[in-house]
Amino acid sequence: MESTACLIGLDWGTSSLRAYLFAANGQVIDQRSAPQRILSVTDGQFAQTWQSLCTPWLVQSATLPVIASGMIGSRQGWREAAYLPTPAGFDELGHALTVLDDLAGRDFRIVPGLSHRNGSLPDVMRGEETQVAGLLADTGKPGGMAAPAAREDRLRIVLPGTHSKWVQVTQARIVAFRSYMTGEVYAVMQKNSILGRTSAEPSAQDEAELGAYWQAFDAAVRLAASQPQSLLALFFSTRSKGLFGELNAIEQSGWLSGLTIGCELGAELGEHAGTGSAPDSPHHESIIIVGSRELAQRYERALHLLGHAAQIAGGEPAARGLFTIAQRAGLLA
Amino acid sequence: MESTACLIGLDWGTSSLRAYLFAANGQVIDQRSAPQRILSVTDGQFAQTWQSLCTPWLVQSATLPVIASGMIGSRQGWREAAYLPTPAGFDELGHALTVLDDLAGRDFRIVPGLSHRNGSLPDVMRGEETQVAGLLADTGKPGGMAAPAAREDRLRIVLPGTHSKWVQVTQARIVAFRSYMTGEVYAVMQKNSILGRTSAEPSAQDEAELGAYWQAFDAAVRLAASQPQSLLALFFSTRSKGLFGELNAIEQSGWLSGLTIGCELGAELGEHAGTGSAPDSPHHESIIIVGSRELAQRYERALHLLGHAAQIAGGEPAARGLFTIAQRAGLLA
Repeated sequence: MESTACLIGLDWGTSSLRAYLFAANGQVIDQRSAPQRILSVTDGQFAQTWQSLCTPWLVQSATLPVIASGMIGSRQGWREAAYLPTPAGFDELGHALTVLDDLAGRDFRIVPGLSHRNGSLPDVMRGEETQVAGLLADTGKPGGMAAPAAREDRLRIVLPGTHSKWVQVTQARIVAFRSYMTGEVYAVMQKNSILGRTSAEPSAQDEAELGAYWQAFDAAVRLAASQPQSLLALFFSTRSKGLFGELNAIEQSGWLSGLTIGCELGAELGEHAGTGSAPDSPHHESIIIVGSRELAQRYERALHLLGHAAQIAGGEPAARGLFTIAQRAGLLA
Repeated sequence: MESTACLIGLDWGTSSLRAYLFAANGQVIDQRSAPQRILSVTDGQFAQTWQSLCTPWLVQSATLPVIASGMIGSRQGWREAAYLPTPAGFDELGHALTVLDDLAGRDFRIVPGLSHRNGSLPDVMRGEETQVAGLLADTGKPGGMAAPAAREDRLRIVLPGTHSKWVQVTQARIVAFRSYMTGEVYAVMQKNSILGRTSAEPSAQDEAELGAYWQAFDAAVRLAASQPQSLLALFFSTRSKGLFGELNAIEQSGWLSGLTIGCELGAELGEHAGTGSAPDSPHHESIIIVGSRELAQRYERALHLLGHAAQIAGGEPAARGLFTIAQRAGLLA
């Protein structure tokens, strides 16, 4: 391993720290992870935290360059890496790294987040720009994105999550994006509102429960996508349908998830016409989904329901993005 | 007092218990209140709770008829009073009271809630039907609603709250309604989401803070009313505008309130066109607001911003409604 390692990449966000050791050809030689998300690092011990995780690598090669993306570059992180405005691609990202001394004589580089203006409203991302860069680097390569997306000069990408991002790419640069608080709204409604009191998650082993859950999810996706402006009223239907025995506890949970995701899709994709397009007239643009397996599949299901072509990105976009941006920044020279 | 009292009315909901002692002409002779909301009554001690609050009245006249409205008639209350379907007015409500023995030889009567179908979705109210009945009884009377509303055969009423209700009345009967979880969504986003971490309420004494708060509120109402389908994205703008110094902590609080109320108004009133009508082309239908003073004024402000005529109902609609329904039920004979 020590003979070929040439870069350490850190994907350091609000849920965990993932570290990658790269070979010169971009292959991931080794990886490690720790539960030290940004907010759990105390007294600004960021240097100690990542060095401790990566000790075995640093012992072998103390001078490896290091690049990090995610909330580590936020105000709550180690050092604020200013947002770069759209449009931005590999080169803009690679040339705007924030460099700091890692307290061990090494340079520590942080990928900037991106900012974008939707009319009068600013929007931001931090970490997703690196995932998108990784996706773009992979596109059309063996093991990367499938052919349909690779053929396109323009890509539409969704990164579902606590704050979902919809990203538009033209000629390998992010030209626009929009954030939706879908995941967080679902979570607080489920956990903290009256709706959570009567709902329950299906057990993964119970086919009947799962069937009922997904049937409610599907119906809610269609409904909310057809009238996303009514989300505040549709939320209440979770309760009233429960009162009338039209949704049991499991179904209420699927219904609420479907409402939030359906509303996001309806707003972003303009599905106001009703239940989406018929299967024989699919939308032409294939949407690429980047996210954890479970959530990505949930979005794929919802998009297909509404008649959209969609595919889940494989590989590890964050790792791939870190390597590609480091390459453009000249760190591997 | 003992010579003229003829009815006890209880407005018993999820926040408190309010009791009214009525004269034969409908005047409130005395009133009392207690913090015993439905969910805080233990071991089903509903009879003891209200009798204890009303002891002075019962001592004077043990046989007074009693009528109650609100969540006391829910599954979590004393006895479930089945929902009455729309359309419903005084007579339907008065003839559908649920009667139970109050454990002291008196009949205790509960006003039914209402149910309505908006397409495939059921909706419910419980307590608001009595407030609307009170409003209708007051309309056109001295001290009641002003003339414009009284002239109309049709009324549009909003009862803002945790779960706002929009009610359509035709010829003194509730013909349709729709619930929005606006108040609860605002509360959980403010209390439990990331947005609450950076926001703060204005102090009632600080003119500058209040000015900034309401300016942000107004802008958010206009924005969300013009694109209610984008609520999940607009929520995120609270954060991004905060990051870019475009909203301070106080303003973020006003912005979030404006977004939720604006979204409700946009969905209900179809303000998709933009910033609402110009002041010189007001909508013809005047909207009547029934609710607590602070919230009613907030809705009045938002409705006026969007070019709608709106007026706040005075008096005590719940008390008036209890009396009127009791009258129709023949309890005062």
